[in-house]
Amino acid sequence: MSQRTVFFISDGTGITAETFGNAILAQFEFKPRHVRLPFIDSVDKAHQAIRQINHAAEVEGKRPIVFTTLVNMEILAVIKTHCNGMLLDMFGMFVAPLESELGIKSNHRVGRFSDASKSKEYDDRIEAINFSLAHDDGQSNKDLAGSDVILVGVSRSGKTPTSLYLAMQYGLKASNYPLIPEDFERRQLPPALVPHRKKIFGLTIAPERLSQIRNERRPHSTYASLANCRHEIHEAEAMMRREGIRWLSTTTKSIEEISTTILQEIRPERLEY
Amino acid sequence: MSQRTVFFISDGTGITAETFGNAILAQFEFKPRHVRLPFIDSVDKAHQAIRQINHAAEVEGKRPIVFTTLVNMEILAVIKTHCNGMLLDMFGMFVAPLESELGIKSNHRVGRFSDASKSKEYDDRIEAINFSLAHDDGQSNKDLAGSDVILVGVSRSGKTPTSLYLAMQYGLKASNYPLIPEDFERRQLPPALVPHRKKIFGLTIAPERLSQIRNERRPHSTYASLANCRHEIHEAEAMMRREGIRWLSTTTKSIEEISTTILQEIRPERLEY
Repeated sequence: MSQRTVFFISDGTGITAETFGNAILAQFEFKPRHVRLPFIDSVDKAHQAIRQINHAAEVEGKRPIVFTTLVNMEILAVIKTHCNGMLLDMFGMFVAPLESELGIKSNHRVGRFSDASKSKEYDDRIEAINFSLAHDDGQSNKDLAGSDVILVGVSRSGKTPTSLYLAMQYGLKASNYPLIPEDFERRQLPPALVPHRKKIFGLTIAPERLSQIRNERRPHSTYASLANCRHEIHEAEAMMRREGIRWLSTTTKSIEEISTTILQEIRPERLEY
Repeated sequence: MSQRTVFFISDGTGITAETFGNAILAQFEFKPRHVRLPFIDSVDKAHQAIRQINHAAEVEGKRPIVFTTLVNMEILAVIKTHCNGMLLDMFGMFVAPLESELGIKSNHRVGRFSDASKSKEYDDRIEAINFSLAHDDGQSNKDLAGSDVILVGVSRSGKTPTSLYLAMQYGLKASNYPLIPEDFERRQLPPALVPHRKKIFGLTIAPERLSQIRNERRPHSTYASLANCRHEIHEAEAMMRREGIRWLSTTTKSIEEISTTILQEIRPERLEY
Protein backbone atom coordinates (compact mmCIF):
# COMPACT_ATOMS: atom_id res chain seq x y z
CA MET A 1 0.00 0.00 0.00
CA SER A 2 1.39 3.40 -0.90
CA GLN A 3 2.06 6.07 1.72
CA ARG A 4 -0.67 8.23 3.16
CA THR A 5 -0.31 11.08 5.65
CA VAL A 6 -2.37 12.03 8.67
CA PHE A 7 -2.17 15.61 9.93
CA PHE A 8 -3.10 16.84 13.40
CA ILE A 9 -3.87 20.56 13.39
CA SER A 10 -4.58 22.69 16.43
CA ASP A 11 -4.39 26.28 17.62
CA GLY A 12 -2.84 24.85 20.79
CA THR A 13 -0.49 21.95 21.45
CA GLY A 14 -2.42 19.50 19.30
CA ILE A 15 -2.22 16.89 22.06
CA THR A 16 -5.99 16.43 22.17
CA ALA A 17 -6.15 16.12 18.37
CA GLU A 18 -3.38 13.55 18.43
CA THR A 19 -4.68 11.53 21.38
CA PHE A 20 -8.13 11.32 19.90
CA GLY A 21 -6.97 10.87 16.30
CA ASN A 22 -4.64 8.04 17.30
CA ALA A 23 -7.45 6.31 19.18
CA ILE A 24 -9.60 6.46 16.03
CA LEU A 25 -6.75 5.33 13.78
CA ALA A 26 -6.05 2.37 16.09
CA GLN A 27 -9.37 1.02 14.81
CA PHE A 28 -7.77 0.47 11.40
CA GLU A 29 -4.99 -1.75 10.11
CA PHE A 30 -3.32 1.21 8.55
CA LYS A 31 0.13 2.73 9.13
CA PRO A 32 0.09 6.32 7.93
CA ARG A 33 2.82 8.92 8.29
CA HIS A 34 1.99 11.35 11.13
CA VAL A 35 2.53 15.10 10.96
CA ARG A 36 1.80 17.28 13.96
CA LEU A 37 1.00 20.94 13.24
CA PRO A 38 0.53 22.69 16.60
CA PHE A 39 0.08 26.39 17.35
CA ILE A 40 -1.69 27.18 14.05
CA ASP A 41 -3.00 30.45 15.42
CA SER A 42 -2.95 32.80 12.45
CA VAL A 43 -4.27 32.81 8.89
CA ASP A 44 -0.67 32.88 7.69
CA LYS A 45 0.18 29.69 9.53
CA ALA A 46 -3.04 28.15 8.23
CA HIS A 47 -1.82 28.76 4.69
CA GLN A 48 1.53 27.13 5.50
CA ALA A 49 -0.35 24.12 6.85
CA ILE A 50 -2.48 23.99 3.71
CA ARG A 51 0.63 23.98 1.54
CA GLN A 52 2.00 20.98 3.46
CA ILE A 53 -1.28 19.10 3.23
CA ASN A 54 -1.79 19.79 -0.45
CA HIS A 55 1.79 18.84 -1.20
CA ALA A 56 1.27 15.47 0.50
CA ALA A 57 -1.97 14.99 -1.42
CA GLU A 58 -0.14 15.56 -4.69
CA VAL A 59 2.89 13.39 -3.94
CA GLU A 60 0.87 10.52 -2.48
CA GLY A 61 -2.03 10.66 -4.93
CA LYS A 62 -4.50 10.31 -2.04
CA ARG A 63 -6.09 12.96 0.08
CA PRO A 64 -4.49 13.15 3.53
CA ILE A 65 -6.58 12.64 6.67
CA VAL A 66 -6.71 15.89 8.67
CA PHE A 67 -7.79 15.84 12.32
CA THR A 68 -8.37 19.34 13.68
CA THR A 69 -9.29 20.77 17.05
CA LEU A 70 -9.17 24.36 15.82
CA VAL A 71 -11.40 26.66 17.82
CA ASN A 72 -10.70 29.82 15.83
CA MET A 73 -13.47 29.86 13.24
CA GLU A 74 -11.63 32.14 10.81
CA ILE A 75 -8.61 29.83 10.66
CA LEU A 76 -10.80 26.75 10.41
CA ALA A 77 -12.71 28.34 7.51
CA VAL A 78 -9.47 29.02 5.62
CA ILE A 79 -8.42 25.41 6.03
CA LYS A 80 -11.85 24.08 5.08
CA THR A 81 -11.85 26.16 1.91
CA HIS A 82 -8.34 25.46 0.64
CA CYS A 83 -7.14 22.10 1.89
CA ASN A 84 -7.32 19.02 -0.29
CA GLY A 85 -7.53 16.65 2.65
CA MET A 86 -10.33 14.76 4.36
CA LEU A 87 -11.11 17.17 7.17
CA LEU A 88 -12.26 15.66 10.47
CA ASP A 89 -13.28 18.70 12.48
CA MET A 90 -13.43 17.28 15.97
CA PHE A 91 -14.74 20.32 17.77
CA GLY A 92 -17.26 21.37 15.11
CA MET A 93 -18.88 17.99 15.43
CA PHE A 94 -19.69 18.41 19.11
CA VAL A 95 -19.63 22.08 20.04
CA ALA A 96 -22.73 23.10 18.10
CA PRO A 97 -24.98 20.35 19.54
CA LEU A 98 -23.68 21.19 23.02
CA GLU A 99 -24.40 24.88 22.54
CA SER A 100 -28.02 24.12 21.85
CA GLU A 101 -28.26 21.53 24.64
CA LEU A 102 -26.70 23.81 27.26
CA GLY A 103 -28.29 26.96 25.95
CA ILE A 104 -24.95 28.80 26.12
CA LYS A 105 -22.42 29.88 23.52
CA SER A 106 -18.94 28.41 23.37
CA ASN A 107 -16.05 30.78 24.02
CA HIS A 108 -13.64 29.47 21.37
CA ARG A 109 -10.81 29.44 23.87
CA VAL A 110 -7.60 27.63 22.98
CA GLY A 111 -6.46 24.90 25.38
CA ARG A 112 -7.31 24.16 28.96
CA PHE A 113 -4.53 26.28 30.46
CA SER A 114 -4.60 29.75 28.94
CA ASP A 115 -2.03 30.95 31.45
CA ALA A 116 -0.64 27.99 33.34
CA SER A 117 0.93 30.18 36.02
CA LYS A 118 -2.54 31.33 37.12
CA SER A 119 -4.26 27.96 37.25
CA LYS A 120 -4.76 26.21 40.58
CA GLU A 121 -5.42 22.91 38.80
CA TYR A 122 -2.11 23.26 36.98
CA ASP A 123 -0.17 24.14 40.14
CA ASP A 124 -1.64 21.08 41.83
CA ARG A 125 -0.40 18.84 39.02
CA ILE A 126 3.14 20.22 39.24
CA GLU A 127 3.08 19.88 43.01
CA ALA A 128 1.91 16.27 42.65
CA ILE A 129 4.76 15.50 40.23
CA ASN A 130 7.31 16.92 42.67
CA PHE A 131 5.70 15.02 45.52
CA SER A 132 5.76 11.74 43.63
CA LEU A 133 9.41 12.23 42.67
CA ALA A 134 10.36 12.98 46.27
CA HIS A 135 8.48 9.88 47.45
CA ASP A 136 9.72 7.51 44.75
CA ASP A 137 10.99 4.13 45.89
CA GLY A 138 10.57 4.79 49.60
CA GLN A 139 13.04 7.69 49.41
CA SER A 140 11.22 9.64 52.07
CA ASN A 141 8.87 8.60 54.85
CA LYS A 142 8.22 12.24 55.54
CA ASP A 143 4.74 13.31 54.72
CA LEU A 144 3.60 9.84 53.58
CA ALA A 145 0.38 10.94 55.28
CA GLY A 146 0.06 13.58 52.56
CA SER A 147 -0.12 10.92 49.86
CA ASP A 148 -3.37 10.22 48.06
CA VAL A 149 -2.14 6.72 47.31
CA ILE A 150 0.92 4.64 48.22
CA LEU A 151 1.90 1.97 45.73
CA VAL A 152 3.70 -1.09 47.07
CA GLY A 153 5.28 -4.03 45.29
CA VAL A 154 8.61 -5.72 44.57
CA SER A 155 11.34 -3.92 42.64
CA ARG A 156 10.38 -3.42 38.94
CA SER A 157 6.71 -4.25 39.36
CA GLY A 158 5.76 -0.90 37.74
CA LYS A 159 5.44 1.39 40.77
CA THR A 160 7.52 4.33 39.56
CA PRO A 161 6.01 4.97 36.12
CA THR A 162 2.53 4.43 37.56
CA SER A 163 3.09 6.97 40.36
CA LEU A 164 4.37 9.53 37.88
CA TYR A 165 1.46 8.94 35.55
CA LEU A 166 -1.06 9.35 38.38
CA ALA A 167 0.62 12.63 39.31
CA MET A 168 0.90 13.97 35.79
CA GLN A 169 -2.51 12.94 34.48
CA TYR A 170 -4.65 13.30 37.59
CA GLY A 171 -2.63 15.54 39.92
CA LEU A 172 -2.60 12.70 42.42
CA LYS A 173 0.08 12.64 45.12
CA ALA A 174 1.30 9.11 44.56
CA SER A 175 4.14 7.71 46.67
CA ASN A 176 5.64 4.34 46.13
CA TYR A 177 7.36 2.00 48.52
CA PRO A 178 9.27 -1.17 47.67
CA LEU A 179 8.63 -4.53 49.31
CA ILE A 180 12.05 -6.04 49.92
CA PRO A 181 13.36 -9.41 51.14
CA GLU A 182 13.73 -8.04 54.71
CA ASP A 183 9.98 -7.34 54.80
CA PHE A 184 9.27 -10.92 53.72
CA GLU A 185 11.51 -12.34 56.43
CA ARG A 186 9.80 -10.26 59.07
CA ARG A 187 6.49 -11.22 57.46
CA GLN A 188 5.26 -7.71 58.12
CA LEU A 189 4.46 -4.56 56.20
CA PRO A 190 7.28 -2.00 56.33
CA PRO A 191 6.56 -0.16 59.62
CA ALA A 192 6.44 3.25 57.87
CA LEU A 193 3.40 2.06 55.92
CA VAL A 194 1.31 0.66 58.74
CA PRO A 195 -0.45 3.94 59.67
CA HIS A 196 -1.46 4.49 56.04
CA ARG A 197 -2.93 1.09 55.25
CA LYS A 198 -6.11 2.52 53.72
CA LYS A 199 -4.17 4.35 51.03
CA ILE A 200 -2.02 1.40 50.01
CA PHE A 201 -2.45 -0.26 46.65
CA GLY A 202 -0.32 -3.23 45.61
CA LEU A 203 1.20 -4.04 42.23
CA THR A 204 2.21 -7.54 41.33
CA ILE A 205 3.53 -9.08 38.11
CA ALA A 206 4.08 -12.55 36.63
CA PRO A 207 7.51 -13.86 37.74
CA GLU A 208 8.48 -14.65 34.10
CA ARG A 209 7.83 -11.06 33.00
CA LEU A 210 9.57 -9.67 36.11
CA SER A 211 12.64 -11.79 35.43
CA GLN A 212 12.72 -10.55 31.84
CA ILE A 213 12.51 -6.89 32.95
CA ARG A 214 15.14 -7.32 35.68
CA ASN A 215 17.46 -9.13 33.27
CA GLU A 216 17.53 -6.06 31.05
CA ARG A 217 18.95 -4.10 33.97
CA ARG A 218 21.16 -6.69 35.65
CA PRO A 219 21.73 -9.62 33.32
CA HIS A 220 22.43 -13.04 34.90
CA SER A 221 22.09 -11.70 38.46
CA THR A 222 20.43 -13.57 41.30
CA TYR A 223 18.16 -10.54 41.55
CA ALA A 224 16.87 -11.21 38.02
CA SER A 225 16.76 -15.01 38.19
CA LEU A 226 13.40 -16.63 37.67
CA ALA A 227 13.74 -18.56 40.96
CA ASN A 228 14.27 -15.35 42.93
CA CYS A 229 11.47 -13.51 41.09
CA ARG A 230 9.10 -16.41 41.86
CA HIS A 231 10.07 -16.30 45.50
CA GLU A 232 9.66 -12.52 45.86
CA ILE A 233 6.33 -12.46 44.05
CA HIS A 234 5.01 -15.36 46.09
CA GLU A 235 5.97 -13.61 49.32
CA ALA A 236 4.66 -10.23 48.20
CA GLU A 237 1.29 -11.62 47.18
CA ALA A 238 1.03 -13.60 50.42
CA MET A 239 1.74 -10.43 52.38
CA MET A 240 -0.83 -8.38 50.49
CA ARG A 241 -3.45 -11.08 50.97
CA ARG A 242 -2.65 -11.33 54.69
CA GLU A 243 -2.76 -7.57 55.19
CA GLY A 244 -5.96 -7.11 53.19
CA ILE A 245 -4.30 -4.85 50.62
CA ARG A 246 -6.02 -4.36 47.27
CA TRP A 247 -3.76 -5.24 44.37
CA LEU A 248 -3.63 -5.94 40.66
CA SER A 249 -1.24 -7.59 38.23
CA THR A 250 0.62 -5.26 35.90
CA THR A 251 1.89 -8.04 33.60
CA THR A 252 -0.03 -7.17 30.45
CA LYS A 253 -1.30 -3.73 31.47
CA SER A 254 -0.22 -0.27 30.38
CA ILE A 255 0.40 2.47 32.97
CA GLU A 256 -2.84 4.06 31.72
CA GLU A 257 -4.81 0.89 32.51
CA ILE A 258 -3.10 0.38 35.87
CA SER A 259 -3.69 4.01 36.85
CA THR A 260 -7.34 3.98 35.84
CA THR A 261 -7.97 0.82 37.86
CA ILE A 262 -6.26 2.28 40.92
CA LEU A 263 -8.31 5.44 40.62
CA GLN A 264 -11.53 3.40 40.51
CA GLU A 265 -10.54 1.55 43.65
CA ILE A 266 -9.07 4.36 45.69
CA ARG A 267 -11.48 7.14 44.67
CA PRO A 268 -9.59 9.90 46.48
CA GLU A 269 -12.02 12.56 47.65
CA ARG A 270 -10.00 15.43 46.29
CA LEU A 271 -10.48 14.03 42.82
CA GLU A 272 -14.25 14.37 42.98
CA TYR A 273 -14.68 17.26 40.68
CA MET B 1 -27.45 27.07 38.08
CA SER B 2 -28.40 23.61 39.23
CA GLN B 3 -26.04 20.67 39.02
CA ARG B 4 -25.50 18.75 35.82
CA THR B 5 -23.35 15.65 35.33
CA VAL B 6 -21.00 14.69 32.54
CA PHE B 7 -20.17 10.99 32.09
CA PHE B 8 -17.16 9.57 30.25
CA ILE B 9 -17.80 5.98 29.15
CA SER B 10 -15.27 3.68 27.55
CA ASP B 11 -14.52 -0.01 27.12
CA GLY B 12 -10.93 0.92 27.99
CA THR B 13 -9.41 3.44 30.38
CA GLY B 14 -11.63 6.31 29.26
CA ILE B 15 -8.59 8.59 29.07
CA THR B 16 -9.28 9.49 25.45
CA ALA B 17 -12.95 10.17 26.20
CA GLU B 18 -11.98 12.36 29.13
CA THR B 19 -9.15 14.24 27.39
CA PHE B 20 -11.32 15.01 24.42
CA GLY B 21 -14.49 15.65 26.41
CA ASN B 22 -12.67 18.07 28.70
CA ALA B 23 -11.26 19.94 25.71
CA ILE B 24 -14.80 20.34 24.36
CA LEU B 25 -16.22 21.34 27.75
CA ALA B 26 -13.46 23.96 28.16
CA GLN B 27 -15.27 25.80 25.38
CA PHE B 28 -18.15 26.48 27.77
CA GLU B 29 -18.50 28.46 30.98
CA PHE B 30 -20.01 25.48 32.70
CA LYS B 31 -18.85 23.51 35.74
CA PRO B 32 -20.47 20.09 35.64
CA ARG B 33 -19.84 17.15 37.94
CA HIS B 34 -17.55 14.58 36.24
CA VAL B 35 -18.06 10.84 36.44
CA ARG B 36 -15.58 8.49 34.82
CA LEU B 37 -16.91 5.03 33.85
CA PRO B 38 -13.98 3.05 32.44
CA PHE B 39 -13.80 -0.64 31.48
CA ILE B 40 -17.48 -0.88 30.47
CA ASP B 41 -16.83 -4.09 28.57
CA SER B 42 -19.98 -6.14 29.08
CA VAL B 43 -23.72 -5.64 28.62
CA ASP B 44 -24.08 -6.05 32.37
CA LYS B 45 -21.74 -3.19 33.08
CA ALA B 46 -23.53 -1.14 30.42
CA HIS B 47 -26.76 -1.55 32.37
CA GLN B 48 -25.03 -0.44 35.57
CA ALA B 49 -23.78 2.64 33.72
CA ILE B 50 -27.27 3.33 32.41
CA ARG B 51 -28.67 3.16 35.93
CA GLN B 52 -26.14 5.78 37.09
CA ILE B 53 -26.87 8.06 34.15
CA ASN B 54 -30.63 7.78 34.45
CA HIS B 55 -30.44 8.35 38.19
CA ALA B 56 -28.50 11.59 37.61
CA ALA B 57 -31.04 12.64 34.97
CA GLU B 58 -33.86 12.17 37.45
CA VAL B 59 -32.19 13.87 40.41
CA GLU B 60 -30.90 16.84 38.40
CA GLY B 61 -33.90 17.26 36.16
CA LYS B 62 -31.62 17.65 33.14
CA ARG B 63 -30.24 15.02 30.84
CA PRO B 64 -26.57 14.33 31.56
CA ILE B 65 -23.93 14.79 28.87
CA VAL B 66 -22.43 11.40 27.96
CA PHE B 67 -19.13 11.22 26.07
CA THR B 68 -18.37 7.71 24.86
CA THR B 69 -15.48 6.08 23.03
CA LEU B 70 -17.10 2.63 23.09
CA VAL B 71 -15.93 0.44 20.23
CA ASN B 72 -18.07 -2.58 21.06
CA MET B 73 -21.21 -2.05 18.99
CA GLU B 74 -23.41 -4.29 21.12
CA ILE B 75 -22.61 -2.36 24.29
CA LEU B 76 -22.99 0.97 22.53
CA ALA B 77 -26.40 -0.10 21.21
CA VAL B 78 -27.59 -0.99 24.72
CA ILE B 79 -26.52 2.43 25.99
CA LYS B 80 -28.04 4.25 23.03
CA THR B 81 -31.36 2.49 23.57
CA HIS B 82 -31.74 2.87 27.31
CA CYS B 83 -29.85 5.93 28.52
CA ASN B 84 -31.62 9.21 29.14
CA GLY B 85 -28.52 11.29 28.48
CA MET B 86 -27.28 13.35 25.58
CA LEU B 87 -25.01 10.79 23.92
CA LEU B 88 -21.89 12.13 22.19
CA ASP B 89 -20.54 9.05 20.44
CA MET B 90 -17.02 10.13 19.61
CA PHE B 91 -15.94 7.09 17.63
CA GLY B 92 -19.20 6.61 15.72
CA MET B 93 -18.85 10.12 14.41
CA PHE B 94 -15.52 9.47 12.70
CA VAL B 95 -15.06 5.74 12.21
CA ALA B 96 -17.75 5.27 9.56
CA PRO B 97 -16.53 8.13 7.30
CA LEU B 98 -12.96 6.82 7.66
CA GLU B 99 -14.04 3.29 6.72
CA SER B 100 -15.42 4.55 3.44
CA GLU B 101 -12.45 6.88 2.81
CA LEU B 102 -9.84 4.19 3.48
CA GLY B 103 -11.85 1.38 1.96
CA ILE B 104 -11.15 -0.87 4.97
CA LYS B 105 -13.24 -1.99 7.93
CA SER B 106 -12.44 -0.93 11.47
CA ASN B 107 -11.45 -3.68 13.88
CA HIS B 108 -13.34 -2.42 16.97
CA ARG B 109 -10.28 -2.98 19.11
CA VAL B 110 -10.20 -1.47 22.59
CA GLY B 111 -7.29 0.84 23.39
CA ARG B 112 -3.94 1.34 21.77
CA PHE B 113 -2.12 -1.23 23.90
CA SER B 114 -4.04 -4.48 23.85
CA ASP B 115 -1.17 -6.23 25.64
CA ALA B 116 1.31 -3.65 26.84
CA SER B 117 4.00 -6.27 27.50
CA LYS B 118 4.16 -7.08 23.80
CA SER B 119 4.31 -3.54 22.43
CA LYS B 120 7.64 -2.08 21.35
CA GLU B 121 6.17 1.44 21.45
CA TYR B 122 5.09 0.86 25.03
CA ASP B 123 8.48 -0.55 26.07
CA ASP B 124 10.17 2.50 24.56
CA ARG B 125 8.00 4.81 26.63
CA ILE B 126 8.81 3.00 29.87
CA GLU B 127 12.51 2.99 28.98
CA ALA B 128 12.33 6.73 28.28
CA ILE B 129 10.72 7.38 31.68
CA ASN B 130 13.46 5.41 33.43
CA PHE B 131 16.12 7.22 31.41
CA SER B 132 14.70 10.63 32.23
CA LEU B 133 14.51 9.78 35.92
CA ALA B 134 18.13 8.57 35.94
CA HIS B 135 19.23 11.74 34.15
CA ASP B 136 17.19 14.19 36.20
CA ASP B 137 18.98 17.26 37.51
CA GLY B 138 22.40 16.28 36.16
CA GLN B 139 22.40 13.14 38.31
CA SER B 140 24.34 11.18 35.73
CA ASN B 141 26.65 12.24 32.91
CA LYS B 142 26.73 8.65 31.76
CA ASP B 143 25.02 8.15 28.47
CA LEU B 144 24.10 11.82 27.99
CA ALA B 145 24.90 10.98 24.37
CA GLY B 146 21.87 8.65 24.44
CA SER B 147 19.54 11.56 25.16
CA ASP B 148 17.17 12.85 22.52
CA VAL B 149 17.13 16.21 24.23
CA ILE B 150 18.95 17.79 27.18
CA LEU B 151 17.09 20.56 28.98
CA VAL B 152 19.15 23.21 30.72
CA GLY B 153 18.15 26.10 32.96
CA VAL B 154 18.38 27.40 36.50
CA SER B 155 16.89 25.48 39.40
CA ARG B 156 13.05 25.46 39.29
CA SER B 157 12.73 26.71 35.72
CA GLY B 158 10.56 23.69 34.84
CA LYS B 159 13.14 21.17 33.61
CA THR B 160 12.07 18.12 35.61
CA PRO B 161 8.32 18.02 34.88
CA THR B 162 9.01 18.84 31.23
CA SER B 163 11.53 15.98 30.87
CA LEU B 164 9.10 13.54 32.44
CA TYR B 165 6.27 14.70 30.23
CA LEU B 166 8.41 14.35 27.09
CA ALA B 167 9.28 10.81 28.17
CA MET B 168 5.77 9.80 29.14
CA GLN B 169 3.87 11.35 26.26
CA TYR B 170 6.36 10.95 23.42
CA GLY B 171 8.80 8.27 24.58
CA LEU B 172 11.59 10.84 24.33
CA LYS B 173 14.79 10.29 26.30
CA ALA B 174 14.94 13.68 27.96
CA SER B 175 17.77 14.51 30.35
CA ASN B 176 18.01 17.72 32.27
CA TYR B 177 20.99 19.57 33.61
CA PRO B 178 20.98 22.53 35.97
CA LEU B 179 22.84 25.78 35.31
CA ILE B 180 24.36 26.79 38.63
CA PRO B 181 26.25 29.83 39.96
CA GLU B 182 29.62 28.10 39.34
CA ASP B 183 28.80 27.87 35.62
CA PHE B 184 28.02 31.57 35.56
CA GLU B 185 31.32 32.43 37.26
CA ARG B 186 33.26 30.33 34.77
CA ARG B 187 31.09 31.87 32.04
CA GLN B 188 31.01 28.50 30.32
CA LEU B 189 28.59 25.67 29.70
CA PRO B 190 29.01 22.77 32.13
CA PRO B 191 31.82 20.74 30.48
CA ALA B 192 29.70 17.54 30.41
CA LEU B 193 27.28 19.30 28.06
CA VAL B 194 29.72 20.67 25.52
CA PRO B 195 29.85 17.56 23.27
CA HIS B 196 26.03 17.49 23.08
CA ARG B 197 25.36 21.11 22.19
CA LYS B 198 23.01 20.25 19.32
CA LYS B 199 20.59 18.45 21.63
CA ILE B 200 20.45 21.19 24.24
CA PHE B 201 17.30 23.20 24.78
CA GLY B 202 17.12 25.98 27.37
CA LEU B 203 14.29 26.91 29.70
CA THR B 204 14.06 30.32 31.26
CA ILE B 205 11.43 32.00 33.42
CA ALA B 206 10.53 35.48 34.65
CA PRO B 207 12.52 36.24 37.84
CA GLU B 208 9.32 37.26 39.70
CA ARG B 209 7.68 33.91 38.99
CA LEU B 210 10.89 32.01 39.81
CA SER B 211 11.18 33.79 43.14
CA GLN B 212 7.56 32.90 43.93
CA ILE B 213 8.13 29.20 43.10
CA ARG B 214 11.39 29.02 45.06
CA ASN B 215 9.81 30.76 48.04
CA GLU B 216 7.28 27.93 48.31
CA ARG B 217 10.18 25.52 48.79
CA ARG B 218 12.59 27.63 50.82
CA PRO B 219 10.84 30.68 52.21
CA HIS B 220 12.94 33.79 52.88
CA SER B 221 16.15 32.19 51.56
CA THR B 222 18.78 33.99 49.51
CA TYR B 223 18.13 31.25 46.93
CA ALA B 224 14.52 32.42 46.57
CA SER B 225 15.13 36.16 46.81
CA LEU B 226 14.11 38.26 43.85
CA ALA B 227 17.60 39.78 43.60
CA ASN B 228 19.22 36.37 43.34
CA CYS B 229 16.61 35.08 40.87
CA ARG B 230 17.18 38.17 38.71
CA HIS B 231 20.91 37.59 38.77
CA GLU B 232 20.70 33.87 37.92
CA ILE B 233 18.20 34.41 35.10
CA HIS B 234 20.26 37.26 33.66
CA GLU B 235 23.38 35.08 33.65
CA ALA B 236 21.60 31.99 32.30
CA GLU B 237 20.02 33.91 29.42
CA ALA B 238 23.36 35.58 28.62
CA MET B 239 25.04 32.17 28.53
CA MET B 240 22.38 30.65 26.28
CA ARG B 241 22.61 33.60 23.91
CA ARG B 242 26.42 33.38 23.87
CA GLU B 243 26.41 29.65 23.26
CA GLY B 244 23.72 29.78 20.57
CA ILE B 245 21.31 27.58 22.53
CA ARG B 246 17.63 27.64 21.59
CA TRP B 247 15.41 28.51 24.54
CA LEU B 248 11.95 29.53 25.60
CA SER B 249 10.32 31.10 28.62
CA THR B 250 8.16 28.80 30.74
CA THR B 251 6.58 31.62 32.77
CA THR B 252 2.99 31.28 31.55
CA LYS B 253 3.26 27.95 29.76
CA SER B 254 2.03 24.50 30.72
CA ILE B 255 4.34 21.48 30.45
CA GLU B 256 2.23 20.43 27.45
CA GLU B 257 2.93 23.72 25.67
CA ILE B 258 6.62 23.70 26.58
CA SER B 259 7.00 20.08 25.42
CA THR B 260 5.21 20.67 22.13
CA THR B 261 7.41 23.66 21.37
CA ILE B 262 10.59 21.72 22.15
CA LEU B 263 9.45 18.88 19.93
CA GLN B 264 8.86 21.30 17.06
CA GLU B 265 12.36 22.72 17.47
CA ILE B 266 14.31 19.54 18.11
CA ARG B 267 12.43 17.19 15.76
CA PRO B 268 14.27 14.06 16.84
CA GLU B 269 14.49 11.61 13.97
CA ARG B 270 13.31 8.68 16.00
CA LEU B 271 9.99 10.43 16.48
CA GLU B 272 9.25 10.48 12.75
CA TYR B 273 6.54 7.89 12.65
